[in-house]
Amino acid sequence: MDRLREHIEEIISITDEEFARIKTFFTIKNVRKNQFLVHEGDEVKYEFLTLDGIYKVFYVDESGKEHIIQFAKKNWWMTDYIGFFSQKNATMFVECLQDGAVACLTLEGREKLATEFHKMEHFFRIKLTNGYIALQQRIILLLSSTPQQRYQEFSRLYPDLISHIPKKYVAEYLGVSRETLSRLYSNGK
Amino acid sequence: MDRLREHIEEIISITDEEFARIKTFFTIKNVRKNQFLVHEGDEVKYEFLTLDGIYKVFYVDESGKEHIIQFAKKNWWMTDYIGFFSQKNATMFVECLQDGAVACLTLEGREKLATEFHKMEHFFRIKLTNGYIALQQRIILLLSSTPQQRYQEFSRLYPDLISHIPKKYVAEYLGVSRETLSRLYSNGK
Repeated sequence: MDRLREHIEEIISITDEEFARIKTFFTIKNVRKNQFLVHEGDEVKYEFLTLDGIYKVFYVDESGKEHIIQFAKKNWWMTDYIGFFSQKNATMFVECLQDGAVACLTLEGREKLATEFHKMEHFFRIKLTNGYIALQQRIILLLSSTPQQRYQEFSRLYPDLISHIPKKYVAEYLGVSRETLSRLYSNGK
Repeated sequence: MDRLREHIEEIISITDEEFARIKTFFTIKNVRKNQFLVHEGDEVKYEFLTLDGIYKVFYVDESGKEHIIQFAKKNWWMTDYIGFFSQKNATMFVECLQDGAVACLTLEGREKLATEFHKMEHFFRIKLTNGYIALQQRIILLLSSTPQQRYQEFSRLYPDLISHIPKKYVAEYLGVSRETLSRLYSNGK
């Protein structure tokens, strides 16, 4: 729970008493490589704060092709947010790529926390603001016309992710073929 | 200002006294077709709540090609959010496509409103949540493999926009060629 408190205190200050209350809304879960936290078709019970490990959020289209919506590493929040916020069944998967642990929060817990503590409402607003910016950057990445530009932008935004993620997943995230991506890797571009 | 109050009260209840204070943070601006609210390279002073009219948020890549990030119509919020939240100069443009009016809010005003009223912090969090979901849907739209699937998904999400926006802008939003889009329009797909 120490890492959860550190994470929250990056944005707001909380007392021991407040944290004692806040932490009751979270459960900690250890996760192994290849384990699924969210599975398409199932209820989306939680959003997850990554305490450790690496994860991918993806969906599979009608033709069986996988598209990666998001990667997550320490201190990133993730889930199938379309399913989570609308309380509909998942249309995506969340899978662990590297052993780790997550803090799990329900939508009901999130709303209660935000109602009970103005500062937690603020915390979630700031996290959403950052998430909103990241998604806009992702859209620009997808609209950038050449695979090389997409790869350069991805490397600029997430230099510490590149070395931890298999090339094929980076290709699926950028919407380029694996062959094209391998050429860009070998050119160091 | 009545429309601003109606918009806020879709999510929270406010008293006359509270609204009298809240509205001091906003200025109303009438906008004409082809007028720019944000221009690449300039400071991003405001975010805008659309009271009337239609707008597009776009950026121009190095080759001079235009990419549309977002459309906006009544009750949607828009600006170059990357520039606005980071207080950096704009990398995008916001242009009016159909005469209207907007309510303008500075970042400082936004933060003060959220600090002063827990319920306004809640309002902004809920708007951001909806915006976050819309951006994720946009990413799925861009990753969907065929132009036909992108167009179908766009029509499903924004049926009332399709008839008000020139085809060439829809093509730029979907990242497909105008020729392909014209074929889809004429097939009614």
